[in-house]
Amino acid sequence: MNLRLYELRGADPARLFSPYVWRVRMALAAKELRAETIPWRFTQKDAIAPHGADRVPVLLHDGRAVRESFAIAEYLEDSFPDRPSLFGGAPGRDLARFVNAWADAVVVPGVARMIMVDIVKLLDPEDADYFRRTREQRFGATLEAVAADRDSAVKAFRQTLHPLRMVVRSQPFLSGQAPMQADNIVFGCFQWARCTSPFRLLEPDDPIEAWRQRMLDLHGGLARNVPAFD
Amino acid sequence: MNLRLYELRGADPARLFSPYVWRVRMALAAKELRAETIPWRFTQKDAIAPHGADRVPVLLHDGRAVRESFAIAEYLEDSFPDRPSLFGGAPGRDLARFVNAWADAVVVPGVARMIMVDIVKLLDPEDADYFRRTREQRFGATLEAVAADRDSAVKAFRQTLHPLRMVVRSQPFLSGQAPMQADNIVFGCFQWARCTSPFRLLEPDDPIEAWRQRMLDLHGGLARNVPAFD
Repeated sequence: MNLRLYELRGADPARLFSPYVWRVRMALAAKELRAETIPWRFTQKDAIAPHGADRVPVLLHDGRAVRESFAIAEYLEDSFPDRPSLFGGAPGRDLARFVNAWADAVVVPGVARMIMVDIVKLLDPEDADYFRRTREQRFGATLEAVAADRDSAVKAFRQTLHPLRMVVRSQPFLSGQAPMQADNIVFGCFQWARCTSPFRLLEPDDPIEAWRQRMLDLHGGLARNVPAFD
Repeated sequence: MNLRLYELRGADPARLFSPYVWRVRMALAAKELRAETIPWRFTQKDAIAPHGADRVPVLLHDGRAVRESFAIAEYLEDSFPDRPSLFGGAPGRDLARFVNAWADAVVVPGVARMIMVDIVKLLDPEDADYFRRTREQRFGATLEAVAADRDSAVKAFRQTLHPLRMVVRSQPFLSGQAPMQADNIVFGCFQWARCTSPFRLLEPDDPIEAWRQRMLDLHGGLARNVPAFD
């Protein structure tokens, strides 16, 4: 078995971010699988084009390419059914789709507007130009202007996390007593921020912060032991 | 076995609403259980106080009282394990908590601000006074003022539904190929609106509207065949 994962890296290749790549890294660890890393940068489109992809993560399994983080998690679940489950069966998998859609619609853009201004500092010049241009187009303002009100915007952001807060204050993980892919999906967003920005998204007494710490402890501190800001 | 359910009713007792009661009605039907109805109005606090409740639904099972719609669904799941499952196992149940928290934090208040002005018309005078007073206090404005911009507010509301839309456009139910309690939880919010307000929450070509129609078809049209607006 040969697993290789294209991962987004910064100018310093030890700087590993992308919320979507983190979802897959956590999924691989939960499945007790090791993948060889292929560092990738935003502007290296040519490197992944042969795999039908224009962004990462891309997982290569014995040469077969699997794209998009949720599809990769499903692929791992189906390809390695005897290893710890990422979904705990069909209903868990189907509802994890909703968690994925919520994270992508609410958490990713909410975090992005606050940390993009810091991400750009971690990129090599070519990637930084690409990142600034595409993100400023998407948000219709400079990265600095988007982030200018983040000290107040973070309060509204924290309110959008209320459904997550309600759950993790009454059970240790979003998925229940043990973490599963739904946890990895949301955690990826926070780990993206942790790896790229000193800006504090959560208050110390937020139950989500306690859950994030539990996620950082998993797999021997896989997510904790990387270059990061807190 | 004796099941009795306190249900919110309007001045016309055939007018059955409350998003939370609908979640339980759908759960009972999915479990193929019949409960005797005990009509209840907002101001009849004394009727349910002996059961430790100040709102409905309250389910009485052989005299034992169970409060709060999610707890009732869990109680039904655990008490009648041989009947069709509401959660499909532990991971499905744990993630349904997140769906419940999302529905309560996003969908219920989003719908409420648009339909409260219509709900009050369906209540008897005593309930109408109570409803207007408590809701106007909560929203800090008259029901009419809250609803005044609903033609534009509904567009923002529809955007908040995007995670649901992403899922039900690629699978028939939020819970996958078959409906489960997660579907009932969100559907209860739409059924509440359907029973109380002519205001259109969804556009006809929204995948959520197609899902809502599938939910209305369940259990012989249980939710379709009640006094409603569309």
